[in-house]
Amino acid sequence: MNQLRDGRPSPMVVRDTSNIRWLTAFDGVFDDEDAHALYVAPDRVVLHTDSRYAKACEQAARRTPIRVDDTRESHASFVARQWNGSWLHGMPGAELQIEDTVTLAEYRALQKAFPADFPIGETDGVVRRLRSVKERYEVARMRGAQTITDAAFSHIVEFMRPGMTEREVQLELDEFMLRHGAEGLAFASIVATGANGANPHAVAGATMLEAGQCVVLDFGAKSYGYCSDMTRTVFLGEPESQMRSAWEAVRAANEAVEAMLAPGVTGKEAHERAEAILAEGGFAGAMGHGLGHGVGLDIHEEPVLSPRNPEPLMEGNVVTVEPGIYLPGKFGMRLEDFGVVTDDGFEVFTKSTHEMVVI
Amino acid sequence: MNQLRDGRPSPMVVRDTSNIRWLTAFDGVFDDEDAHALYVAPDRVVLHTDSRYAKACEQAARRTPIRVDDTRESHASFVARQWNGSWLHGMPGAELQIEDTVTLAEYRALQKAFPADFPIGETDGVVRRLRSVKERYEVARMRGAQTITDAAFSHIVEFMRPGMTEREVQLELDEFMLRHGAEGLAFASIVATGANGANPHAVAGATMLEAGQCVVLDFGAKSYGYCSDMTRTVFLGEPESQMRSAWEAVRAANEAVEAMLAPGVTGKEAHERAEAILAEGGFAGAMGHGLGHGVGLDIHEEPVLSPRNPEPLMEGNVVTVEPGIYLPGKFGMRLEDFGVVTDDGFEVFTKSTHEMVVI
Repeated sequence: MNQLRDGRPSPMVVRDTSNIRWLTAFDGVFDDEDAHALYVAPDRVVLHTDSRYAKACEQAARRTPIRVDDTRESHASFVARQWNGSWLHGMPGAELQIEDTVTLAEYRALQKAFPADFPIGETDGVVRRLRSVKERYEVARMRGAQTITDAAFSHIVEFMRPGMTEREVQLELDEFMLRHGAEGLAFASIVATGANGANPHAVAGATMLEAGQCVVLDFGAKSYGYCSDMTRTVFLGEPESQMRSAWEAVRAANEAVEAMLAPGVTGKEAHERAEAILAEGGFAGAMGHGLGHGVGLDIHEEPVLSPRNPEPLMEGNVVTVEPGIYLPGKFGMRLEDFGVVTDDGFEVFTKSTHEMVVI
Repeated sequence: MNQLRDGRPSPMVVRDTSNIRWLTAFDGVFDDEDAHALYVAPDRVVLHTDSRYAKACEQAARRTPIRVDDTRESHASFVARQWNGSWLHGMPGAELQIEDTVTLAEYRALQKAFPADFPIGETDGVVRRLRSVKERYEVARMRGAQTITDAAFSHIVEFMRPGMTEREVQLELDEFMLRHGAEGLAFASIVATGANGANPHAVAGATMLEAGQCVVLDFGAKSYGYCSDMTRTVFLGEPESQMRSAWEAVRAANEAVEAMLAPGVTGKEAHERAEAILAEGGFAGAMGHGLGHGVGLDIHEEPVLSPRNPEPLMEGNVVTVEPGIYLPGKFGMRLEDFGVVTDDGFEVFTKSTHEMVVI
């Protein structure tokens, strides 16, 4: 990043807030607004923010080489000003690197702020790939977030009963996490009962939990900026036989993949192993989504465990393993842990049981 | 939108989720993921989504001319397929219209999916501007959201006491809204006491409320997709004289602007009127942010009340009026209502008092 690129003085502009947060390692400064730009060049690293964030940014920057600039101007003119004020300015071969996740409007503004022949390079996930290998402090934070999430699961199993609505259960789950150390939710919690569970993206609503159903609970906490993510499926009374075999297949797929994950295994292999086990159990083609995804500052990061990922996993990748079976009109279920790829295997953060939970 | 543009068959692609939500008027379908694309052309309107959302989208589309397509492909190839399959395809002068809020990566993908000489026009806020004039059902939904928010304010005034932390007050406020009809929060609630209040974007934390301070409470509910937004400043015991004059200035600015808002008044004029009144009160330059912003499906919409907006307001605009005074190291305060520009004035949705609330 902060190197001369092929000997050329190439400043890079980072606009993705999670990327900025990761690169600066500033805590408690950024919220969900994409209000910031980080200018990274061989001679300076400057964070452009606005007056609302300036004080918090300056405090966080104190023991770092990062400067904070809250000049009231567009990011484009800020970037041009940094470049024009640099001793690198006159050097030949300069190229401005920008993330291809910026909006088209912002790209046009940058084009206007620089001479027409100034080359603008588009980077595709450079920082996102760096972020996919976690450092120890990041793993520690996710373990901490998962502790809150496991506790919330124990609590909700005691709390939930047939006759409650999905929404009641969701509010209780969320309040528990927020009152037990979560600074926020990692995503909108899913509480989906009966046929609603067959929709992997169900919104918790007024549907009532009924005996004989199973309920998908998919939720996570945020702690010190980092997410956790888990899913358990809870049974309201003894399940009928198709539900039971689905659960066995989902559990077998989850545990087989968790046992195989290690550096060198590809995302595609992991996904296909889960698909094969679900198929053996009689549920071929019933998953319909990727087996897992990276987790970190964002709830969806790299790498993914899916047919689209032929890349080998690396030590330090943090991923979910979440096989699911969805039978439209009937029920859905999913069993999701998350953990870190170690030097020779996979260490699961999630401590909640894989046994069938019947209430 | 759905017209031939200068007689040319110009399909438009809408990617912004709030714009899609507004154009389709689908309820309870979309979440925060930018997972969808709406193709709008003279011969068809098609929503491209993925399997997770397909069922909910199809249900919502039943009595509309909108078709739902959950083919597993990129939005770019979906768009190209719609265009290639259309009877408009052979017509001369076609231009693909895209929103300039798409990412650069997506723009490049669209360029690749079409012939190199196929013109791609970039639209700047077309749908956002349409959204800035609210329909009656939208105003009704925001009124409803504000009812929840006003009730939460009454509750929190009874609840909050010196010795509590900002975070405790925030959690109580949020839980009240979520348990009294809010489907979500319009944004992360602000509870900022003492000097923290001087930061208009404070994050509620472990700081304790102390007698003699004032506390800024800025919060809103979401109801049927629409946001509310209000700020009140609450005094912990009788305020000292500078606080009292600041409050009087903020209140005077708020009420003067609410009395002047009407079609034809510009955002700039409204902002400058507030600045002038704050200056008369001895607080020139102490605001540091724009006076207000539009509200709707998103918490920040058009139009803004700020020096940057020389455009006249229109009947149906829904805006906040939120003058504030921030004295770094001392205190901050803000008084925010929101309401709708009517044919001859401004109707405030917020019912909570402007009187000084001392607890």
